[in-house]
Amino acid sequence: MASVPARGLADVVAASTALSDIDGQAGRLSYRGYDINDLAGAASFEEVAFLLQRGTPPAAGELDSYRGELAAGRRIGTLAAGILGGVARQQRPMEALRSLVSLGSADDPDTGSNERTANMRKAARLTAQQPVLIAAYHAAREDRALPEADPGLGTAANFLLQLSGSPPSARAAEILDTCLVLHADHTMNASTFAARVCAATLADMHSAVVAALGTLSGPLHGGANEQVMIGLIAIRQGGGDPRDAVTRWVMQRLAHGEKIMGFGHRVYKTEDPRATHLRRMSAELAAASGDDTYYQMSRRMEEVVLAEKGLFPNVDFFAATVYHYLGIPTDLFTPVFSASRMAGWTAHVIEQHADNRLIRPDSEYIGERGQHWVPLGAR
Amino acid sequence: MASVPARGLADVVAASTALSDIDGQAGRLSYRGYDINDLAGAASFEEVAFLLQRGTPPAAGELDSYRGELAAGRRIGTLAAGILGGVARQQRPMEALRSLVSLGSADDPDTGSNERTANMRKAARLTAQQPVLIAAYHAAREDRALPEADPGLGTAANFLLQLSGSPPSARAAEILDTCLVLHADHTMNASTFAARVCAATLADMHSAVVAALGTLSGPLHGGANEQVMIGLIAIRQGGGDPRDAVTRWVMQRLAHGEKIMGFGHRVYKTEDPRATHLRRMSAELAAASGDDTYYQMSRRMEEVVLAEKGLFPNVDFFAATVYHYLGIPTDLFTPVFSASRMAGWTAHVIEQHADNRLIRPDSEYIGERGQHWVPLGAR
Repeated sequence: MASVPARGLADVVAASTALSDIDGQAGRLSYRGYDINDLAGAASFEEVAFLLQRGTPPAAGELDSYRGELAAGRRIGTLAAGILGGVARQQRPMEALRSLVSLGSADDPDTGSNERTANMRKAARLTAQQPVLIAAYHAAREDRALPEADPGLGTAANFLLQLSGSPPSARAAEILDTCLVLHADHTMNASTFAARVCAATLADMHSAVVAALGTLSGPLHGGANEQVMIGLIAIRQGGGDPRDAVTRWVMQRLAHGEKIMGFGHRVYKTEDPRATHLRRMSAELAAASGDDTYYQMSRRMEEVVLAEKGLFPNVDFFAATVYHYLGIPTDLFTPVFSASRMAGWTAHVIEQHADNRLIRPDSEYIGERGQHWVPLGAR
Repeated sequence: MASVPARGLADVVAASTALSDIDGQAGRLSYRGYDINDLAGAASFEEVAFLLQRGTPPAAGELDSYRGELAAGRRIGTLAAGILGGVARQQRPMEALRSLVSLGSADDPDTGSNERTANMRKAARLTAQQPVLIAAYHAAREDRALPEADPGLGTAANFLLQLSGSPPSARAAEILDTCLVLHADHTMNASTFAARVCAATLADMHSAVVAALGTLSGPLHGGANEQVMIGLIAIRQGGGDPRDAVTRWVMQRLAHGEKIMGFGHRVYKTEDPRATHLRRMSAELAAASGDDTYYQMSRRMEEVVLAEKGLFPNVDFFAATVYHYLGIPTDLFTPVFSASRMAGWTAHVIEQHADNRLIRPDSEYIGERGQHWVPLGAR
């Protein structure tokens, strides 16, 4: 008979991975053994995606070639292109991405193959395509044409270009690039785990990534960064001194037993190392913008939540203001998270397919027993 | 520190459920305490879907009303309808269903709500819609119009009508109805588990069901019934006495260490009770068809595999020939499975949302440690 572990599989090892590792006590995260503190600001998103998907840091020639693959992959398939307008009008961003990525398998020449090299090519295409889909969705809902991609730009800079229509400053592109690095992988988070459960039936990479996108859409996972910003905007619109308003808002929510989005993590028992980098970038962008209100409000919020609940900000908390200062619409925060995590999801599918076993847990039955079916007429 | 359980979460309890229970030693399956042997042939798919999604067998008035909901739900949303032709040309059946169901959230008035009654309405709509999407996909790839639904027919009969264009015999409809009952739920199978992992982030029902569809598409899960039929067809086409050809084929595969699709199950240690019913229906349809070759081949295959490997046929094995004799195209076998399992998936989402906790396991890190990032120029 199976034993009953903690609910939600907390502390249960569900898979082995060589992709990322967390030391929750020390607040450390590493990708393939490289500490996130060494990578942030030093490695580009393209280098990190290559590291995750292909196993080692790219040599110069490999990186050129991978960048070429990404530039070539910045396109939208025929089915997705045909329905983009309808999807932009009728589906919210994460719903739309779920649909558009699902349709995208129609145009991928490697669809149907789980072979390692096919998976690597698909991983690059999906990583290249995701930010383009987000920008295309945004352009379509504003009835604008999608600005053309610039093959000379990296993923972050090209995304900001295609999102806004204007080339970003070098520093804005660098900061978004670092955000993409910080969000690229995070062990067995719910969306990655969903992707692995899916891939473990030998379903293909698109199915696994679509499962991950749906999972990330939940407010307990990817949706948190958006909720943080919505909260900050609402507090500021309420008027009064913004920092005092934050204190009142937090105390009131806590008094009602409500959760404060963007704080606490099942794995980290100290500050999430990604939050440290995001706080610094939020401060920099706030200062450069000439209005640091949201940053100051965020700082107050973390003080109050730490004092009252002992909880640290997680990756979503300062990502919210960073994305805001970068000019990204609030409802695209979770999509931007997905553009980064696509690197990790696809790497996990490659890893799962390379040494597969079906993931099929047990359940504990808690319902009625020994019922007797009575035909409708006699019921 | 977390302990390392068996790979693939075998024997690990991942969730509690009141929906279905398996006794693998005794070969028993029950839905909400009703033994599948009491339900098969006695309860309609609509009664079973209601039982799973709403908790009790429906009273006569409740069943009428639920049937009305299903009849009203037999429609395709605007986005899905607009892209049906393209999807039918460019995506395989399970890819297409993943895309069409994802697009379908655009037309569901309850999209965005995880509230219990909203979830119940969505569950009925998704259950009603799934067979219509399959028939519509099939009609579109054959460049035919989808035959109109008959609101007086149950799910099984209406599906056969919309698939073929002709009303099915009463017995064919009854047999498919029993198949839908047998496949409706099965504890923490991979697709259901994926749906629960997704729903546990408070992602909505469409996201969870899309994750499940992608997961079911894998050949280690839903794809097995199709592979069984492909095998039988290939063996028969090879010529010679079909039963002898089966023996040679099985022995040859086993000699090469290959898996025989449709046999064995992680949970059942004896015959899967669903296989017993499906074997009987396969025999009946084979006799009625005037050519029982595939049935006889299947019987030989189970004899040889049992003798050589001690493995029993699972639910996929005789489902293959049953669907074949019912005139269902081989590549729609897994989609038909999905039309039944939709009842269970949606019930699991209702159950997960009603008492939720994020499903976020740990992983065991098996990669390199303590790497030092060398900038590109120095690499």
